[in-house]
Amino acid sequence: MQVAMIQDEILALEELEPVYLDRAFYFGDGVYEVVRSYDGKIFALEEHLERFASSLTAIEITGVNIEQIRRRVQNAFEAAGITNAQIYFHITRGSAPRKHIWDADLKPNFFLTVTEIAYNRKEHTEGIVVSTHPDWRWKRCDIKSLNLLPNVLARQDAARKGCAEAILIDETGLITEGAGSAFFAISEKKLRTAPLAANILPSITRKYVIKAGENIGLEVIEESLTPQQAGSADELFIAVTTKDIVPVVKFDGKPVGNGKPGKYTKLLAQEFLSFTR
Amino acid sequence: MQVAMIQDEILALEELEPVYLDRAFYFGDGVYEVVRSYDGKIFALEEHLERFASSLTAIEITGVNIEQIRRRVQNAFEAAGITNAQIYFHITRGSAPRKHIWDADLKPNFFLTVTEIAYNRKEHTEGIVVSTHPDWRWKRCDIKSLNLLPNVLARQDAARKGCAEAILIDETGLITEGAGSAFFAISEKKLRTAPLAANILPSITRKYVIKAGENIGLEVIEESLTPQQAGSADELFIAVTTKDIVPVVKFDGKPVGNGKPGKYTKLLAQEFLSFTR
Repeated sequence: MQVAMIQDEILALEELEPVYLDRAFYFGDGVYEVVRSYDGKIFALEEHLERFASSLTAIEITGVNIEQIRRRVQNAFEAAGITNAQIYFHITRGSAPRKHIWDADLKPNFFLTVTEIAYNRKEHTEGIVVSTHPDWRWKRCDIKSLNLLPNVLARQDAARKGCAEAILIDETGLITEGAGSAFFAISEKKLRTAPLAANILPSITRKYVIKAGENIGLEVIEESLTPQQAGSADELFIAVTTKDIVPVVKFDGKPVGNGKPGKYTKLLAQEFLSFTR
Repeated sequence: MQVAMIQDEILALEELEPVYLDRAFYFGDGVYEVVRSYDGKIFALEEHLERFASSLTAIEITGVNIEQIRRRVQNAFEAAGITNAQIYFHITRGSAPRKHIWDADLKPNFFLTVTEIAYNRKEHTEGIVVSTHPDWRWKRCDIKSLNLLPNVLARQDAARKGCAEAILIDETGLITEGAGSAFFAISEKKLRTAPLAANILPSITRKYVIKAGENIGLEVIEESLTPQQAGSADELFIAVTTKDIVPVVKFDGKPVGNGKPGKYTKLLAQEFLSFTR
């Protein structure tokens, strides 16, 4: 008899609930998105759905109706009735006994949560401290996949050092991005961030930060930075859907600029918020 | 109200079964092993438990009693009563609402299946065909983690080309290993395979293949190969727990040697089987 075991309980394999056969469980075989609402309005849902569709295509999960996903997101958001909500959703390739190769008739599984965003005023007004970590992620970080163990380990390492984010350094010594955020530097009215490539998530927030930068008169330069260049920048910040723009005031133990959130970072944050209204 | 949604069904977040909060689901935050039995006897369980303990330590999952895991594996194996069984088990960091940083009090989740091994005589006697794929995996493949999407994509690509395994090529143009196996070449009585490093799984089967190679008088050389070197080798084979040694007779469309399983590969397979008795 083929069996399964959950903690100490043994059961027949056929009695296992399908969720235990979800390929997310064995392979991280799925892709996800996080969107948020500002004052009851979901921000940039179209862009997130577009990126979600790209991620699905990249890992060859087919037959997903994006209109149906949009309706599900909206239905769940309305049912929750949370003004400033974080909406997480993922699709996995489906449930089946474990084997790498997938069968063409697998039905994708959809999962979503709506939770309240805890706005952290202190992070926004006083800034955060970050540390660097080797970029251990896979070579297709342009796909927003459920293979996030390297991100988890990098962030835990940062937390252990009292830092709010890990900034990832690739094997050539260049900064890619944060473990869960885009990363930016400002020096002499120039806004710098790594160019989009296979090792960078095409962050929606990044796109709006660049737009905000252009609006306030910064020159935008998509070029990778070394940790040394970041450490000597006038201003640093991270950008992520759930927190938008957060100033970085210390980088690997060294104060950034005068050790306080930078003036252009504040202007960018204001400009960014205007997009969300 | 915080909500969850599974396909089209909306429920309160608190009503969600803990399995939906398993960190394997969101991050692939866990490690696994596959062992097998030959004629009612589990092979190399000690080595697999040792590697499992190393993987757990590497991703900082603590508080797992390896003796308890051994008992669970044995209990499930006995309950199944399958002579030639494949035993898959994993431990994840635990169940909690999604956030990268983990809480110290999380309780790890254990999951296991025992299934029958379908012995594929044809693969062993006639050999398999393999193709190459870029190695997209993360930089800590020495850890046997649940982040397996790159392996899945590489194997699916191979299957599409009618191949049974994908041989992974790193960005410097060297072969690392198979998407789910160790990879070996034999030329002029020399057995070659990539040296153990952060990008290679310390395969238990690999270890026994090397022992078998020494026993039959092959010189063992732990050096990475290029696809060109592999393509012109006298013999090629893969090695994996569930299939032990499988000859490779075609590499990226080109016949290996005379296009038939090699003589040393056959001798190695015989020698390997003697270890399992």
